[in-house]
Amino acid sequence: MGGTSFQARNLARGREIWSQMLRDEVTIFLGLAGAMVPAGMRQVIVYLIENRLIDCLVSTGANLFHDLHESLGRSHWKGSVGSDDRELANSKIYRIYDVLTSAKEFDQTEEFARNFSNGLEQGRAYTTREFFFLLGQELSSLGKNQGILAAAAKANLPIYCPALGDSVFGTALAAARVKDGNQLRFDIVKDVVEMVQIASARPSGVIFVGGGTPKNFIQQAKLCGYIFNKELDGHEYAIQVTTDSPQWGGLSGCTFDEARSWGKVSPNAKTVTINCDATIALPILVSALSQDSAEAIKNRKSPAFLLGKDLAIF
Amino acid sequence: MGGTSFQARNLARGREIWSQMLRDEVTIFLGLAGAMVPAGMRQVIVYLIENRLIDCLVSTGANLFHDLHESLGRSHWKGSVGSDDRELANSKIYRIYDVLTSAKEFDQTEEFARNFSNGLEQGRAYTTREFFFLLGQELSSLGKNQGILAAAAKANLPIYCPALGDSVFGTALAAARVKDGNQLRFDIVKDVVEMVQIASARPSGVIFVGGGTPKNFIQQAKLCGYIFNKELDGHEYAIQVTTDSPQWGGLSGCTFDEARSWGKVSPNAKTVTINCDATIALPILVSALSQDSAEAIKNRKSPAFLLGKDLAIF
Amino acid sequence: MGGTSFQARNLARGREIWSQMLRDEVTIFLGLAGAMVPAGMRQVIVYLIENRLIDCLVSTGANLFHDLHESLGRSHWKGSVGSDDRELANSKIYRIYDVLTSAKEFDQTEEFARNFSNGLEQGRAYTTREFFFLLGQELSSLGKNQGILAAAAKANLPIYCPALGDSVFGTALAAARVKDGNQLRFDIVKDVVEMVQIASARPSGVIFVGGGTPKNFIQQAKLCGYIFNKELDGHEYAIQVTTDSPQWGGLSGCTFDEARSWGKVSPNAKTVTINCDATIALPILVSALSQDSAEAIKNRKSPAFLLGKDLAIF
Amino acid sequence: MGGTSFQARNLARGREIWSQMLRDEVTIFLGLAGAMVPAGMRQVIVYLIENRLIDCLVSTGANLFHDLHESLGRSHWKGSVGSDDRELANSKIYRIYDVLTSAKEFDQTEEFARNFSNGLEQGRAYTTREFFFLLGQELSSLGKNQGILAAAAKANLPIYCPALGDSVFGTALAAARVKDGNQLRFDIVKDVVEMVQIASARPSGVIFVGGGTPKNFIQQAKLCGYIFNKELDGHEYAIQVTTDSPQWGGLSGCTFDEARSWGKVSPNAKTVTINCDATIALPILVSALSQDSAEAIKNRKSPAFLLGKDLAIF
Repeated sequence: MGGTSFQARNLARGREIWSQMLRDEVTIFLGLAGAMVPAGMRQVIVYLIENRLIDCLVSTGANLFHDLHESLGRSHWKGSVGSDDRELANSKIYRIYDVLTSAKEFDQTEEFARNFSNGLEQGRAYTTREFFFLLGQELSSLGKNQGILAAAAKANLPIYCPALGDSVFGTALAAARVKDGNQLRFDIVKDVVEMVQIASARPSGVIFVGGGTPKNFIQQAKLCGYIFNKELDGHEYAIQVTTDSPQWGGLSGCTFDEARSWGKVSPNAKTVTINCDATIALPILVSALSQDSAEAIKNRKSPAFLLGKDLAIF
Repeated sequence: MGGTSFQARNLARGREIWSQMLRDEVTIFLGLAGAMVPAGMRQVIVYLIENRLIDCLVSTGANLFHDLHESLGRSHWKGSVGSDDRELANSKIYRIYDVLTSAKEFDQTEEFARNFSNGLEQGRAYTTREFFFLLGQELSSLGKNQGILAAAAKANLPIYCPALGDSVFGTALAAARVKDGNQLRFDIVKDVVEMVQIASARPSGVIFVGGGTPKNFIQQAKLCGYIFNKELDGHEYAIQVTTDSPQWGGLSGCTFDEARSWGKVSPNAKTVTINCDATIALPILVSALSQDSAEAIKNRKSPAFLLGKDLAIF
Repeated sequence: MGGTSFQARNLARGREIWSQMLRDEVTIFLGLAGAMVPAGMRQVIVYLIENRLIDCLVSTGANLFHDLHESLGRSHWKGSVGSDDRELANSKIYRIYDVLTSAKEFDQTEEFARNFSNGLEQGRAYTTREFFFLLGQELSSLGKNQGILAAAAKANLPIYCPALGDSVFGTALAAARVKDGNQLRFDIVKDVVEMVQIASARPSGVIFVGGGTPKNFIQQAKLCGYIFNKELDGHEYAIQVTTDSPQWGGLSGCTFDEARSWGKVSPNAKTVTINCDATIALPILVSALSQDSAEAIKNRKSPAFLLGKDLAIF
Repeated sequence: MGGTSFQARNLARGREIWSQMLRDEVTIFLGLAGAMVPAGMRQVIVYLIENRLIDCLVSTGANLFHDLHESLGRSHWKGSVGSDDRELANSKIYRIYDVLTSAKEFDQTEEFARNFSNGLEQGRAYTTREFFFLLGQELSSLGKNQGILAAAAKANLPIYCPALGDSVFGTALAAARVKDGNQLRFDIVKDVVEMVQIASARPSGVIFVGGGTPKNFIQQAKLCGYIFNKELDGHEYAIQVTTDSPQWGGLSGCTFDEARSWGKVSPNAKTVTINCDATIALPILVSALSQDSAEAIKNRKSPAFLLGKDLAIF
């Protein structure tokens, strides 16, 4: 596709840039927004984690909750866009574009999250990284090893969730608070501090699937070197797969050009924006990478070092 | 425009629905995403607050930070899309689509937020509502009354920010943590609990400018009546102004049809999706409402009752 | 809106540029694509013609056919997007997004077009301008003066339709050919020649509602000065109202930047792209112009001179 | 991809439907809009023609002109979106999104088209099918066999161009008229008649790359069975690859649902809309088809029978 034009050429360039990130041993952040797990991308993300194609995941709460849902053995089914949503509501079925899931089973997963939260140390303020690391370990201990959370815990790969309250985790925690007196707190400021630490450790690259809070959360980390008395230049490699358009003022965050003016992306960063539904672009990218980067992948070090002993304390 | 078709008809219907929300005394949530303050919508939002056209604001951190920036007397300037962003970076100018702002002045606003945070009670876990209420009061006490934060504090109108860490507030707090030993915590679970309380109090309507975390955060509140042993039906009025498209799987959250299957929106809710840049649609809607809803607006009660004494403690 | 940003600022700039075109006495082309007549924009276009806010119209066949349909006293009705289209098909109702029309009445309008064609001089090769001029005169002679075709004929304002066969006019003519032995021909090359004549006569500006064939047909006219041994610089003012995005490779034709590389638009042309549904943007633009350009409008000369006696022969 | 969701699932369904069209021996129309030849899709289209994966091509003039350009040995080169278009204009280089071409060479191709037109029978009214068939033969006779026009002429596959005047063919013909006294006419009504004949011959399917005039021109053919006293049901298979969105009122023509209300598409047609840049989706579709439909492809009859002796007279 590299010989063609328009978005096919951008897709080919995405593969080149990602491949170069792997060879150059930079820290790779993946920002994950949009209902990618219900859309069937869960095993692709797991593959990225297990094969060290990424080092740090920043996600919406929804994707992590849907991963938990599937990890517990529940399913998303194929539905269709033209469904009658009032009828679905009557039948207690939730729709996510062309995907369906059972409201009752969803409630059971919410219940699991609530119980898990009640088992954590009350009064302590967790980072979202700690919360999801412990949840991944819990899943492993139950023999539920197939998903994103379990794979990340096993690989010591940090997961951040900048809007945890905005998801079923948030409502599960609210229920735990009101009904069970749960007093869990979250140290969302430490999340930011750690992101800056990781982003400051060495050159870095980003892969954005969609925009939203994961995208900006990753970008802003590069603006805060001053916290640790460092001068940072911005991410040096940047790929985004997006279906948004720049003319609405932001591209769900900002364009890479705008990002350059802020220093979120380095002046000479290698960047590409792939305008394509991620369900098409991401499997193609990853399939191509798995072919031509086998050597680089094998040699990549575990990202666990990124936070030193912090991750190890669990 | 009601006599025409396509999006003009939807715009006219948006005015009808909002107007009916005002007459029916429902609780009106505004979800605000996208760089609406840099885009010049700040005074429109202030008008909505001061005239009680909305009761509760859920916003990205960025819009609130840009409001603080302007409240402190600093500016966003007209720029252009075709700017050379490397040159802007050299000149320490940040670009937001066709708007520019000074990096140095931005740093000063960040410094203000950091100092403000250092003045709060250390070790205490604040809701984001409390944080922004206190910040609005601080601005008022400094004679900076022109903006969203000050107007909301004065009107006792709650503001929530589900991804506070994902904004310059987040990086200001991270700097305060590392450099000043600031130990502020945030009770993001209580944010969710309060949202459910407000959404459960009486029938409700939503206005979404863009999608993202504000949109889902408002929608999920209606799914959690069970926390307080209530059966809720979903929001009964729903307007969204969006530039996203449903075929990408979500419309930055979900379509109102999908929302019905979940119960986020009631089966018989009056809904409209206006596919238009909010910088065009929002001023038209508000200007029309100010003309034909003067009576209804005058009679609306303060939203302060929504959380009872909670808001009053400050 | 000029003081705001994003698309609201572009809308304000559109008004400025159009207003300047009126003052500077340039030839103004309007390219009309998309189902603008069914969408309720017919009277806006008539207003533009009657008040000389444009000088030449290039349209899809569909918009002109829908104008004929309404001119003959038939209607488009409000429908809804969620209609069951199989049921509509059974009920012989056609849907155009949220607009409906009767298949039977549509057939009657097609019949009218077929009979009209049979009344023209057989064997002669008409330009599309001549065809629509005669059709407008026919409507006037029947007392049907309310529409685009009649207004344009009265104002001697040329209408071109670069894809006449691609519309119900095309199928009406095909029926006339097969069933009535109609031998009408079209001189589509003379259409192009005339467009070049008009575009070469003096400085020019363009207003594109959507893209498609009208947009390119107007743009290419400025590339062909060499036919008449003239050097042309490209259109000097250019406004487009579009809902397409540049990343797909074309913006339904090309962006104004691309157009500059071709010489379709002059290097120093004043241009603006308004990303907005035309049903919202066009009425706002025209309403603003009617207020602030009254003097300029009054003084504009009839565009009839553009083709000299050619138009007069009918 | 069939096991996933969103647009990946639609892409998988597109392959199924196309594959079924091949097995069921229906007449397959391809509508081609957008700058697909400059974007590198030329050899994909040639493959479709040579392997009988389509039976009839309806295209914009631009794609056919760019095919001629490359057939004559000239090139499109890789450029970039951020080019300075004033500078390109000075250097006589045309830009098409991220593709460049030499203005001088383009003029030479225009000259070739003009001379070719001057060699045709003057005063005669050609269908666009005849024009492009003869042009394809001319290219073959010059040993230029690599492109769309030559392949189609060799395969007796009809090509229609509903807006011939709206392309460099149109301006070449205008130059021929004014400067060389060329009196070529086009019988655009016969184009429509032939399309109805082809679409009436047996069940049919459509593949739309983009929208515009090719899409509607193919769809309307199925509404005109009455011309030949036939009752037609609409196309029975329908695939479109589009980057437009339905909320703007049309999807560059209409959605397949709307098309059902008109009878353009049969009530029970198998349809799918793939929301993806065609430069990505089309090669994937064709590559998949070439693998799993080898048998079906081999057995497909030449489409030449479609117009009986008409095509043979040349």
